[in-house]
Amino acid sequence: MKLGKFGAALLVAVAALASSASAQNTAGDLPLMPLPAHLVRGQGQFVVDGTFNVKLTGYTSPRLERARARFLATLFRETGIPFPQEAQYQAPKFIVHTGHAGDPVQQLGEDESYHLVVTPSEVDLTAADPLGILHGFQTFLQLVQKTPQGFAAPAVTIDDAPRFPWRGFMMDVSRHFMPIPVVKRNLDAMEAVKLNVFHWHLSDDQGFRAQSLRDPKLTGDGSDGLFYTQQQMRDIVAYARDRGIRVVPEFDMPCHTTSWFVGYPELASGKGPYHIIRHWGVFDAAMNPTNPQVYAFIDGFIGEMTTIFPDQYFHIGGDECNDKEWNANPQIQQFMRAHHLATDAALQAYFTAKVQKIVASHHRIMEGWDEVLQPNTPKDVVIQSWRGLASLTQAAQQGNRGLLSTPYYLNLNHSAADYFLADPLGADATKLTPAEQASILGGEACMWSEYVSPQNIDSRTWPSLAAVAERFWSPANDRDVASMYRRLAVTDTNLAYHNIDTRAEVNGMLRRMSSAQALPAMRTLSSAVQPPRDYHRSSMAKWDVFTPLNRMVDATPPDSAAARRFATDVQQIVAGNATPEIWRDARTQLIRWRDNDAKLQPILSTSSLTADLAPVSANLAKTATIGLQALDALHSKSPLSSATRQQDMEFLQRAAKPQAVVIDVVVPSVETLLQAAPAQ
Amino acid sequence: MKLGKFGAALLVAVAALASSASAQNTAGDLPLMPLPAHLVRGQGQFVVDGTFNVKLTGYTSPRLERARARFLATLFRETGIPFPQEAQYQAPKFIVHTGHAGDPVQQLGEDESYHLVVTPSEVDLTAADPLGILHGFQTFLQLVQKTPQGFAAPAVTIDDAPRFPWRGFMMDVSRHFMPIPVVKRNLDAMEAVKLNVFHWHLSDDQGFRAQSLRDPKLTGDGSDGLFYTQQQMRDIVAYARDRGIRVVPEFDMPCHTTSWFVGYPELASGKGPYHIIRHWGVFDAAMNPTNPQVYAFIDGFIGEMTTIFPDQYFHIGGDECNDKEWNANPQIQQFMRAHHLATDAALQAYFTAKVQKIVASHHRIMEGWDEVLQPNTPKDVVIQSWRGLASLTQAAQQGNRGLLSTPYYLNLNHSAADYFLADPLGADATKLTPAEQASILGGEACMWSEYVSPQNIDSRTWPSLAAVAERFWSPANDRDVASMYRRLAVTDTNLAYHNIDTRAEVNGMLRRMSSAQALPAMRTLSSAVQPPRDYHRSSMAKWDVFTPLNRMVDATPPDSAAARRFATDVQQIVAGNATPEIWRDARTQLIRWRDNDAKLQPILSTSSLTADLAPVSANLAKTATIGLQALDALHSKSPLSSATRQQDMEFLQRAAKPQAVVIDVVVPSVETLLQAAPAQ
Repeated sequence: MKLGKFGAALLVAVAALASSASAQNTAGDLPLMPLPAHLVRGQGQFVVDGTFNVKLTGYTSPRLERARARFLATLFRETGIPFPQEAQYQAPKFIVHTGHAGDPVQQLGEDESYHLVVTPSEVDLTAADPLGILHGFQTFLQLVQKTPQGFAAPAVTIDDAPRFPWRGFMMDVSRHFMPIPVVKRNLDAMEAVKLNVFHWHLSDDQGFRAQSLRDPKLTGDGSDGLFYTQQQMRDIVAYARDRGIRVVPEFDMPCHTTSWFVGYPELASGKGPYHIIRHWGVFDAAMNPTNPQVYAFIDGFIGEMTTIFPDQYFHIGGDECNDKEWNANPQIQQFMRAHHLATDAALQAYFTAKVQKIVASHHRIMEGWDEVLQPNTPKDVVIQSWRGLASLTQAAQQGNRGLLSTPYYLNLNHSAADYFLADPLGADATKLTPAEQASILGGEACMWSEYVSPQNIDSRTWPSLAAVAERFWSPANDRDVASMYRRLAVTDTNLAYHNIDTRAEVNGMLRRMSSAQALPAMRTLSSAVQPPRDYHRSSMAKWDVFTPLNRMVDATPPDSAAARRFATDVQQIVAGNATPEIWRDARTQLIRWRDNDAKLQPILSTSSLTADLAPVSANLAKTATIGLQALDALHSKSPLSSATRQQDMEFLQRAAKPQAVVIDVVVPSVETLLQAAPAQ
Repeated sequence: MKLGKFGAALLVAVAALASSASAQNTAGDLPLMPLPAHLVRGQGQFVVDGTFNVKLTGYTSPRLERARARFLATLFRETGIPFPQEAQYQAPKFIVHTGHAGDPVQQLGEDESYHLVVTPSEVDLTAADPLGILHGFQTFLQLVQKTPQGFAAPAVTIDDAPRFPWRGFMMDVSRHFMPIPVVKRNLDAMEAVKLNVFHWHLSDDQGFRAQSLRDPKLTGDGSDGLFYTQQQMRDIVAYARDRGIRVVPEFDMPCHTTSWFVGYPELASGKGPYHIIRHWGVFDAAMNPTNPQVYAFIDGFIGEMTTIFPDQYFHIGGDECNDKEWNANPQIQQFMRAHHLATDAALQAYFTAKVQKIVASHHRIMEGWDEVLQPNTPKDVVIQSWRGLASLTQAAQQGNRGLLSTPYYLNLNHSAADYFLADPLGADATKLTPAEQASILGGEACMWSEYVSPQNIDSRTWPSLAAVAERFWSPANDRDVASMYRRLAVTDTNLAYHNIDTRAEVNGMLRRMSSAQALPAMRTLSSAVQPPRDYHRSSMAKWDVFTPLNRMVDATPPDSAAARRFATDVQQIVAGNATPEIWRDARTQLIRWRDNDAKLQPILSTSSLTADLAPVSANLAKTATIGLQALDALHSKSPLSSATRQQDMEFLQRAAKPQAVVIDVVVPSVETLLQAAPAQ
């Protein structure tokens, strides 16, 4: 044991000499997500058994005690090993040392760093602030793996701290309401990947979700009864604080405000009456910036909300005013002339400036979307960019701090790689000075809820959100996509220990469409399709708040692992680098896709939720057949007839088009094969 | 619409003429569980869409309003169709009529009947008592199926009422503590299958789980901190009442009481000190029946518990006294002589009689296990039989009411068919007079928790418990095992809408043992094995409260559908009745089992949780190979060499023995094949 410790100490010394890049490469072998800033492997491993116990030393608090209990409960779920109370009377195995208390309200930039040393005999977790301990616990949970000797964590020394201080996830609970258990399990998973801001988009045209005792008609008339009570919101704030997560509420204004006006039409610029909006888009409702009553209302309301949300930041939205109500209201037009407000943007700036003062009067720093940035916007206002890095760069140059969100819109169904590679300091931001770069606080992934319900939000959010979390936490040079996907797969599985089980959710959706017996065939079809990316879905059919989200487009995850693996195989084959295993793997996959149709067709017609998948399944079979022919031609170096190839290419072009609102993701790889195949 | 209603009315008239047996046969085609008492199919179906709404008429109450909301929430999970509030302003689709209020505390024998009429245009649910409405809601949820026209319920007329008034499930939360979410989701699923008593086994040698403010050391010293607060228990009582479920608490005495004595050794017959028991078995600790302080304590404690548990019945346990402490205590021996208590049973009867008076003084009816039945036991005491029907029959003959539990011990891993076919009025009970039979109130399935943790209790309890629920609810002549299994499979899938997802639980356990990639191969192995039945597991190795329940024996369900299907195939083949599909099905299954080993062996050695499965997997491959040879011999009518056959039979006899604590369930069917194969 002494030797073991000595060895570990030596390695730590060596680590100081190692470059950060090589440290990450070492970490890349371990299923950590996000990757730590610095990691050095030691020798041997620490076995977790029933004698495992955790001792808190240094500063302690009820929050740390709860974190310890939660850590042991998660480790129990992860291993099945019960950790009896008696163990605490034995020699400690996992020693936590906390330097001091955390801030009473978690602060932006509060110290999140930690130092974790795992040796075969002991684990030491040290942090100045309790936040670091929370993060170190999660790292250890990720280190624990199955081994022939039992569950064990490899010996490592980790020095870790986040790259960005603001690492957020925004959940839109207006367009589809998300009950408390959904919020809680997403907070559990956020903790697991070290995200630290939950941005709660609590109001929009489609519903007002935060109970106000002062203005009860906000939810009374604007929520269909689907809202959070004040006690529930306070519980969530406490729940998040326990997990090292700040809660930033957003009340979007002056537009996206229809739901406010159902009960309080006097706040609006139009005549009303207003009804809760039932469909998707940008709507006309806008607060009346010329009405003093509006500011009094906002002042009272924000005052009430700050008793619930202690965070230093308060989000007032500010996006997407279409200006129609302002233009149609003669009194507002007259006001603009009288106050020399030449444009609607100027009018909004007038409004925003007044709201900013209200927010400040309640001891909060205002946050808003791009539109709140005006030449004279106070410098402490934080800009959240939905318009992109160019806009964010402008904010930074103007001296405002900002957050990047555009490339992290999870509802747009991009690949985890896309999200992972987008950097808050990439693109336009590279031209910023170091000081300006420092004003980019990080970013937030967003889940706008037009097309997610409580039934499928987990599998649309995760595991991609973990890839975003890594982007925000880990060093900038962590850009190995293959490593990311390997670790993401493990993370996805392990999120079940944090109450997010994406596989169970998808399986449940597919079973509901068909049957338990049909699940394997439905999964095979699902592996070949994905929901449309970006905003294409909205153009394919009409959806509204009443539309069931219970079809393949809602069930199939946005980033098929099987299709990705097949695409990688094809790249190797076409490049001439494929091993026999790769050839075999590609062939097996194509045969599975080809043969699935015969199993699935008799089932698809029995349910209204699957009938429209008949051509999707048939096209997949034909696509796979074409792929197999091309594969054979490539393998045997025997040419395809040019007529066949022409016909096949035309078929693939048709098959590439969306059908039943899903996209066939196998087609591009088969096109690649076909193009590479020798032709006559 | 008029014609439709007329047609339905006609069918109701016809139904009156139909025999109950034929009505059930018709119901057997529908995925209902439990089968209703009387059902007649109508014509057409009622389509559930976004205009669906539920109107409460007649008597209403907050409980019925909550039931309506829960019904719509479950229907949303089942279909994905949101049911907006607006729909309630449209013409009602589902009309509920309740006759009168339910009893303030749900009573044994309270009217649970309901009348449900589904026509293509409307659903009418009528019941005298709210309990009938709760049951009718569940029946409708089961009727809804996928169709080419959307989710729809077939037109039916159902007149339903339970066969037995006491249909219970006992959960042992002492040996392994079960947190509140586990209790709640099991109550949800109990409601789905019309069970109406939750028997909460709250204390035993291994832990005291109910907080007492009066006697705080019960949980303070006897629970390891794992207990329910009074508020949590009150919440569970209210939660259960909402679901038509009575909560009967059990505090086992005078034995199984070690956990009481950790804090209160003065109640014991032995000297102490006592420590929480950490392993399984029957232990010596026993209350001192000669100590007046014991009765004062019990009186105070039961008085406190009756403020939490309003049910008319109170369970005092009374089982398995081993008498050692009584025999070893001279003061007790002297007391027995002085009071002419010749045997330990007489001493326990003395104790029980005093406790019965205490229970009665708190306005409760005492319930106990077999042992509490003595010649002079008051006639209102309810006997729960763990000893079996003979014992229960004796109670009935003595004029006591009783419940059957023996054949429904879910922890003994019997098949659902075993549980389903065991009848509370079967075997010895058939000789009872009708009046005596009426004193058998029903039964309770029991889940003793030596080998279940919160991580696997759902998949050990369900779906088998649904088969028990059908036995307790449906007519006695409902004994079609094939129909039961068909409906059980659907019930299992649909329980996910009631928060019990057995498949996700099993998959999670198997993934934890290996990996997500290995899951298919692990599932194939799992499909060929089961945990030992009855009490055999305890003899195979040492287990205690600290032993992780994270291996194959804990993951694999007790009743493999694949093995059952294969066994049915083999029966048909051997009987000469097999269709080509059956031959193919059996062959495909054998090939899957045979070929699995090659995939699995490299994985098994990588984890300490799977290493011991290597011979299990290898034996399965060899068993399947033998099965394939026998199948070929049978199919081609070409004989096997007798030497081969002899060798194979010897191998199968070895393979039938437990290995890695699991039983190969394929062996018996392969033996059958081998015996039937022609030999030289």
